[in-house]
Amino acid sequence: MNNLKQRRTIRKYSSEDISETFLTQLLTEAERTPTMGNLQLYSVVISRNSEMKRRLAPAHFNQPMVESAPVVLTFCADSRRTTLWAHQRKGNPGYNNFLSFVNAAADALLYCQTFCNLAEEKGLGTCFLGTTFYNPLSIVETLALPRLVMPVGTITLGWPAESPDQSERLPIESIIHSETYCDYTPELIDRFYAEKESLPANRQFVEINNKETLAQVFTDIRYTRADNEHISATLISALKHQGFLD
Amino acid sequence: MNNLKQRRTIRKYSSEDISETFLTQLLTEAERTPTMGNLQLYSVVISRNSEMKRRLAPAHFNQPMVESAPVVLTFCADSRRTTLWAHQRKGNPGYNNFLSFVNAAADALLYCQTFCNLAEEKGLGTCFLGTTFYNPLSIVETLALPRLVMPVGTITLGWPAESPDQSERLPIESIIHSETYCDYTPELIDRFYAEKESLPANRQFVEINNKETLAQVFTDIRYTRADNEHISATLISALKHQGFLD
Repeated sequence: MNNLKQRRTIRKYSSEDISETFLTQLLTEAERTPTMGNLQLYSVVISRNSEMKRRLAPAHFNQPMVESAPVVLTFCADSRRTTLWAHQRKGNPGYNNFLSFVNAAADALLYCQTFCNLAEEKGLGTCFLGTTFYNPLSIVETLALPRLVMPVGTITLGWPAESPDQSERLPIESIIHSETYCDYTPELIDRFYAEKESLPANRQFVEINNKETLAQVFTDIRYTRADNEHISATLISALKHQGFLD
Repeated sequence: MNNLKQRRTIRKYSSEDISETFLTQLLTEAERTPTMGNLQLYSVVISRNSEMKRRLAPAHFNQPMVESAPVVLTFCADSRRTTLWAHQRKGNPGYNNFLSFVNAAADALLYCQTFCNLAEEKGLGTCFLGTTFYNPLSIVETLALPRLVMPVGTITLGWPAESPDQSERLPIESIIHSETYCDYTPELIDRFYAEKESLPANRQFVEINNKETLAQVFTDIRYTRADNEHISATLISALKHQGFLD
């Protein structure tokens, strides 16, 4: 994983395809990821067909890589396979609840990240789309996801055709806590965010958005309270629709 | 990541410690994992102190590796740092809601899995504890996690002192779906679970639990409906307590 230090999100891909054999090999190797009770509470839907990618795009706010990537993968929390298996084996499955969703979502996301680490080690470029939680029922409909299956992560995948700047990260001291959570004082916040705020790209980002601070770009434009509250309600409805909440 | 094919969960560790420098290096490298809006909505609490590990153990059903591992890491969904930053920068953060929890949990789990892949590549052994969702408020209390911080994954970490059998996985055909979700027929369920059910270790598992099928061990003993429903309610209470749900 020496490549990790140079990792960039890749949104532009060459026209070269990813062979089914190679993709299946990577997905198989990623199965070694730990999974709850070894139940593998996840499924992956592979989109290669242009029409299917076109139909997926609106759920991801029409970000262009959804249609331009040779492969789009939707990772799903899946309690359905286990439930069908248990019914067929005289079991009494009780996986239509919130805990089961959370367990399955964790399984799916851990699996997704191992897949991405593997794919990037082989030279593929990926873009993780957090938008999966924003319009889940649109994805459910497009991919025909039945009850007890919920999309939790999407990646676009292809051979890189760009080499963007690497995005900055916070100093590790701001992430780790020894023994107990050491809450952030105003001085610590200033110290931990100083570099991020001073970067020319981020200063420009503030300017073009006509804001006073970088944080305001996030709270007032990108991820606002009103949007977050609206989407929270949508997401809870989707969990009910898929059978994970009463 | 050639080691991944041989991966096993490791629950027994040598007495050799993990240096702070080495652990910090791995946690820093893992920061390259994609994160929503580059906000890094996660924190990690490092437990090395014996007394702290002893206090964490009950939340993980006293599984012995919590106390015997040199290091325990608790990965947390964290909207708090971003919220404090935004308040300090005249922003109006709205991250005390369910979407913000889910986004932060995804960030934390993806980061956790890259960390595990890196650590295992360096020869460390890990055990992922799904029990983190079972008694979250006990963990919250022990680690002094404030509002807008929620534990979502725990790993025990150390140099391996065992080499257990590798656990089986389902055939990749049971995990992947092309273009749309292909629902599981009874024939497919039989085919996909045949190998798992035929393994001597799993047959023995059925026998010692006095059950008729492997699935019944999961539904009647390990992850029962009653437990799942009870824990779902506990988890929702914990999300409210930590400020992620009304």
